[in-house]
Amino acid sequence: MTFEEEEDFDGQNDPDRVTGGISADRLRSIIERVERLEEERKALAGDIKDIYTEAKSAGFDVKVIRQIIRLRKQEPAEIEEQETLLSIYRRALGM
Amino acid sequence: MTFEEEEDFDGQNDPDRVTGGISADRLRSIIERVERLEEERKALAGDIKDIYTEAKSAGFDVKVIRQIIRLRKQEPAEIEEQETLLSIYRRALGM
Amino acid sequence: MTFEEEEDFDGQNDPDRVTGGISADRLRSIIERVERLEEERKALAGDIKDIYTEAKSAGFDVKVIRQIIRLRKQEPAEIEEQETLLSIYRRALGM
Amino acid sequence: MTFEEEEDFDGQNDPDRVTGGISADRLRSIIERVERLEEERKALAGDIKDIYTEAKSAGFDVKVIRQIIRLRKQEPAEIEEQETLLSIYRRALGM
Repeated sequence: MTFEEEEDFDGQNDPDRVTGGISADRLRSIIERVERLEEERKALAGDIKDIYTEAKSAGFDVKVIRQIIRLRKQEPAEIEEQETLLSIYRRALGM
Repeated sequence: MTFEEEEDFDGQNDPDRVTGGISADRLRSIIERVERLEEERKALAGDIKDIYTEAKSAGFDVKVIRQIIRLRKQEPAEIEEQETLLSIYRRALGM
Repeated sequence: MTFEEEEDFDGQNDPDRVTGGISADRLRSIIERVERLEEERKALAGDIKDIYTEAKSAGFDVKVIRQIIRLRKQEPAEIEEQETLLSIYRRALGM
Repeated sequence: MTFEEEEDFDGQNDPDRVTGGISADRLRSIIERVERLEEERKALAGDIKDIYTEAKSAGFDVKVIRQIIRLRKQEPAEIEEQETLLSIYRRALGM
């Protein structure tokens, strides 16, 4: 990745204008697409936060809702196995 | 948040059926909306990863692109100030 | 980001030598202390990972051990309340 | 998560007493060691935070110090290559 002698910069409207061996348009396209997707991701994070705020206002326990969501990603057999182990370990520790 | 006397569970189709003092439908709606948004967020993360893979294939340095994206979030004056400080600190440390 | 022609650096052994208005020795001390502590933190993370590897070899379920450690940070009354809520929510959702 | 009828627990002082097929002492040892290391890790995080507070009080820019620490983890040749690329990309984008 070496870049030699920079050429002029008057090719602003040339779709293939190149700076230091790279395509400026390609680079700009990549960056703008990432930025757009990151904006969407940020908006989604805000939407999720709003739902939890709504849940809290409705009297639900947010921490427990998060636990439910984690459980729903697991297979019932897996949940049961972990709950069995959890109760064995707790008992062993006198908890 | 205390829940008294559980009533029966036959109200499956009653939109206001309540379990342990909570609205099952409201809870289900909250959880399903969060799950849907989390799915979308995961899909976006995949899309961003794909763009970086494309960038790498096109010969770009992904680490430097990330740095560009960070810089574009800052004010030009802020960037300049930090670059000035960075060069002062580096010089002070003989880097 | 190139830096040419700078004044001399012969004040290397002067404890109060200053570059660009900052104390190089103070800066170096700050950076080296942070680096040392970060090294220690990294070593601790490795030690914790080793214990989990040991636990796994001994037949324990690492995920359940992590859950136990989370529970041990909570008050018993808090644990009980959350478990009660969890079972109410699960029942409401038919899980 | 209720647990009824279990065998007695009078083996409290037996180093090899086993609950549900597991060694309670081994489990307790694993958990206590992890907790101790996590405590140390938390203390280190606090120490690092204190140094940054000190740095800020002394007039340093904490963000730039973090950047210096990142740079010091890299090889000089790597730093230089990334800085070259960064300036090419910035120029290409008119930044």
